[in-house]
Amino acid sequence: MADARYDVMGIGNAIVDVLAHADDLFLAENALVKGAMTLIDAETAERLYQDMGPAIECSGGSAANTIAGLASLEGAGAFIGKVRDDQLGAVFTHDIRTLGVAFDTPPAEAGPPTARCLIFVTPDAERTMQTYLGACVDLGPEDIDGDEIAAAKVTYLEGYLWDRPRAKEAFRKAATIANREGRTVSLSLSDPFCVDRHREDFLDLLEGHVDVLFANEEEIKSLYKVDSFDKALQYVRGHCEIAALTRSEKGSVVVSGDEVHVVDAEPITKVADTTGAGDAYAAGFLYGFTQSRPLDICARIGGICAAEVISHVGARPEISLKDVVEQKL
Amino acid sequence: MADARYDVMGIGNAIVDVLAHADDLFLAENALVKGAMTLIDAETAERLYQDMGPAIECSGGSAANTIAGLASLEGAGAFIGKVRDDQLGAVFTHDIRTLGVAFDTPPAEAGPPTARCLIFVTPDAERTMQTYLGACVDLGPEDIDGDEIAAAKVTYLEGYLWDRPRAKEAFRKAATIANREGRTVSLSLSDPFCVDRHREDFLDLLEGHVDVLFANEEEIKSLYKVDSFDKALQYVRGHCEIAALTRSEKGSVVVSGDEVHVVDAEPITKVADTTGAGDAYAAGFLYGFTQSRPLDICARIGGICAAEVISHVGARPEISLKDVVEQKL
Repeated sequence: MADARYDVMGIGNAIVDVLAHADDLFLAENALVKGAMTLIDAETAERLYQDMGPAIECSGGSAANTIAGLASLEGAGAFIGKVRDDQLGAVFTHDIRTLGVAFDTPPAEAGPPTARCLIFVTPDAERTMQTYLGACVDLGPEDIDGDEIAAAKVTYLEGYLWDRPRAKEAFRKAATIANREGRTVSLSLSDPFCVDRHREDFLDLLEGHVDVLFANEEEIKSLYKVDSFDKALQYVRGHCEIAALTRSEKGSVVVSGDEVHVVDAEPITKVADTTGAGDAYAAGFLYGFTQSRPLDICARIGGICAAEVISHVGARPEISLKDVVEQKL
Repeated sequence: MADARYDVMGIGNAIVDVLAHADDLFLAENALVKGAMTLIDAETAERLYQDMGPAIECSGGSAANTIAGLASLEGAGAFIGKVRDDQLGAVFTHDIRTLGVAFDTPPAEAGPPTARCLIFVTPDAERTMQTYLGACVDLGPEDIDGDEIAAAKVTYLEGYLWDRPRAKEAFRKAATIANREGRTVSLSLSDPFCVDRHREDFLDLLEGHVDVLFANEEEIKSLYKVDSFDKALQYVRGHCEIAALTRSEKGSVVVSGDEVHVVDAEPITKVADTTGAGDAYAAGFLYGFTQSRPLDICARIGGICAAEVISHVGARPEISLKDVVEQKL
């Protein structure tokens, strides 16, 4: 196998987050499902934005956040995702490139604008996400460059891609190339409702394509339609090479064949906004993984990265994750 | 005089801030004047943005921040400023309107894009601003509605407007109407370099138009070309009805005829980013002023608002200033 140019190639929705504080009453009045990611159309996005308080904008997207985190750890990252050639597209492109991430997917020159995710952060620091996919719907297999996939140790895919037919094709193409090239394929289940929409497909993917699975407790329980974490744990063992399962303040559990690690969460004084916690965990874990660190250390790095990201508003690290990990590990 | 519909009408540049952390070396390499606001052209903005790290976007603009702060205090605010009909213009419009501020200036339908201010926050929490004025250059006297000016207790103008000839005309028109209607005209000197560019004009304005002046120590020293705060203080007395002079951690000094108040700064545990400190002070002061509070209380409210805004990244309050002031005053 040739030397890898990238540690991780991420493929996902290219999204700008629009973050505002909101209370539970607002969620109730607008029938928003707390803690979940819901897809919305342009009209709903417009209406919700009008009712939303003053906001800040920052680059987001699940896999994109993970690659941003990896870059903050000084891992070599690349990203594939679709923006439009508009101002928010320029913001997304700037933010990921200045981290040193290779991002060369051509922006759409027509069609819907760059995707945005309206994120309502409640006083309990939980985030509720409403995503208008915009230009993301134009991502297709033609955006997947086989040489680039072959050049990455890990190709990391977000489950959210499965929501659009052409993105799904892109996903399959990338996974197939990575498998063929002997590279690692990693999948994040993204969201329990996303799992619910695509359960059979995800189970197939786990069997045939995926080497490293990321899921939180709700997602893995949804995948196997079971009511306890331990039951889900028993199912997932043996269905992919490595599964890294996150459990918020309970830390994470990593299984790989007979190997099992139960790793505590990193202590944190105050949780400000849980947006991006799972993405940051995956960043830390995959950074450790591509540096051939033992799985328990990968899980600890993941936990340290997640702790940084949830300590402030916004899904991406505010300070160098490399420095934080060096200090805390 | 008719009842006022607004407490404060702000007129200023409508700007989206682009905030990133940077170190002093970055400032030196790019020859940026630390702590100052420098006007840049589109090309320089593009170049600097490319070299800038990952950023967050939030609505800014000096007078706009002040009106946002006033709205957070539940004062009745209005704003006049020019955006373009683009995505960043929509962001600016959303953020100020959802605070309850009346903002009805029609966006430009052609010409340069919505203004942005690249803000580099150094580890000492100082901010260095590079502003591309974009669509702001289209603000002109035709955007000033005399009835709206007449309907505001205070018309608040930022000195930065003086940098563009047509905005200056708009400024003069608004001040003339407010004077004629017996309303209060307030001016912020904005920046010592801005004062340097327009010293004679600002001195004339103080003599003829301005009732309430806001300036920080550097600005008021620059205005009178003196080397000590006390000398500037002696000059400014008698040249406008009220002068509120801010001195960072030394608090503020308010003079009005024979009345003088020296008010301590609000204690704060950690300064994260000084962007918007002066704007927030003006918001608090003018809120008190329009509620007919004594001048020392106006200064204290100003100090409490400034303390909230400098405790986090970004120029506008993150929490209700009304609540903060109720708790601390």
